[in-house]
Amino acid sequence: MAGFWYTEKQTDNFGITLKVNKTLHTEQTDFQLLEMAETEEWGNMLFLDGMVMTSERDEFVYHEMVAHVPLFTHPNPENVLVVGGGDGGVIREVLKHPQVKKATLVDIDGKVIEYSKKYLPTIAGKLEDARVEVMVGDGFLHIAESENAYDVIMVDSTEPVGPAVNLFTKGFYAGISKALKEDGIFVAQSDNPWFKADLIRQVQKDVKEIFPITKLYTANIPTYPSGLWAFTIGSKKYDPLAVKEERFHDIDTKYYTKELHNASFVLPKFVKDLTEE
Amino acid sequence: MAGFWYTEKQTDNFGITLKVNKTLHTEQTDFQLLEMAETEEWGNMLFLDGMVMTSERDEFVYHEMVAHVPLFTHPNPENVLVVGGGDGGVIREVLKHPQVKKATLVDIDGKVIEYSKKYLPTIAGKLEDARVEVMVGDGFLHIAESENAYDVIMVDSTEPVGPAVNLFTKGFYAGISKALKEDGIFVAQSDNPWFKADLIRQVQKDVKEIFPITKLYTANIPTYPSGLWAFTIGSKKYDPLAVKEERFHDIDTKYYTKELHNASFVLPKFVKDLTEE
Repeated sequence: MAGFWYTEKQTDNFGITLKVNKTLHTEQTDFQLLEMAETEEWGNMLFLDGMVMTSERDEFVYHEMVAHVPLFTHPNPENVLVVGGGDGGVIREVLKHPQVKKATLVDIDGKVIEYSKKYLPTIAGKLEDARVEVMVGDGFLHIAESENAYDVIMVDSTEPVGPAVNLFTKGFYAGISKALKEDGIFVAQSDNPWFKADLIRQVQKDVKEIFPITKLYTANIPTYPSGLWAFTIGSKKYDPLAVKEERFHDIDTKYYTKELHNASFVLPKFVKDLTEE
Repeated sequence: MAGFWYTEKQTDNFGITLKVNKTLHTEQTDFQLLEMAETEEWGNMLFLDGMVMTSERDEFVYHEMVAHVPLFTHPNPENVLVVGGGDGGVIREVLKHPQVKKATLVDIDGKVIEYSKKYLPTIAGKLEDARVEVMVGDGFLHIAESENAYDVIMVDSTEPVGPAVNLFTKGFYAGISKALKEDGIFVAQSDNPWFKADLIRQVQKDVKEIFPITKLYTANIPTYPSGLWAFTIGSKKYDPLAVKEERFHDIDTKYYTKELHNASFVLPKFVKDLTEE
């Protein structure tokens, strides 16, 4: 179809609406409804089960903040795993770190990878890099089968509905801990504090039981519900708020800075309260 | 009317949509179209010329961040002026500071004050306080007629269309400087960096020519365009990033904290770039 307004209901009673120039691809994959569209405001966009996953215009925020916060926190992140993230945006940011020797991507839906390469080339363009291994498979199982393998694990999943529901369980966080090396770090997207306060509270509680250093940070993503996105970081050894100055090196970013690295952990009071309950 | 979805086009090609239970009041005032509505997600809301001004659920962010950043920066803010802000939210926050002896509100549209008192009582409820003087009149003229009068001036205006267009000019900032005491501070809402980059760039440039200390800070407001709102602060003497620890005192807030005071000035790289051009 061409020339219409698409509305995503982000809650039962609130949503965003945006002008679509044309639909580029629509397909019910084995796992979810995949839609690619060319929009007037945000460039090409990927939707899964009707929810905005990424847009060419604002994708940099999410991808930079998932990747750079844990990667600068770890002193030598050589071996990195991305669970989900088939659009390739997190991988693109991971590769900006010269310490990374290998980045493995495990996405359950090969169609997301295929159509991101086709319609989101500025996001997915680094998936063919020599340092990257792309696997189409179940990230939950891959984690369960991995032991002492990764320095940093990033969970770039959809919401806890559909294929991602296992990725928001305490069993998954325990698996992540086992899959990480003894000084490993993981980060997971954790939805937003305005509409999903209970989710953030529960994830913080669960992760704290497994990781000695558990924190929440946020970033502004205009096409995501409420515009304020939360990320949970769990670390075995390194504190994301105690990164040595010399660890930071220049990378090309549009959102992340080393100053913002620290500031993103300073939470609005009502969000801070969620992490302390 | 009752039981419909209202859509605010925040740009030509993007907007928010929300479920309205019922319209409470609709009136073309002498200055703008005033609408009050009861919404399912955000509680009662005020719209001016079709744009969201405030909602009961997320108003605390804007009002706390306008008021507390300059009021904690100034060591002794006794005399405070709010230009616009007829909903009373900024005044409510100003009154949390015991140093404030008098808070003057000048809004051009008495109907905003009248209907905010009626339908947004948790926001407007402090307009009758003994320390508050409410004036219905032109804020631009009030500023022009004031000299060496205020410690802190807060510009809580609509967008630079309609009645607020004069409030985004260099002449207005010069007037504010004159209306402030020799160590005065002002803050003005400055829209958002995603859709109004040029505005932010221009305001920063204009204010810098008049105020030796000019900075930008942001806050997350879900019902405002992009979810990331910007505020320009201009100060003659006191640096908002050099507030002495003992200056902070406990106040009841839901968004502002003294840590967030500082963190809100740490900008995403693309926003920081706007302030340095």
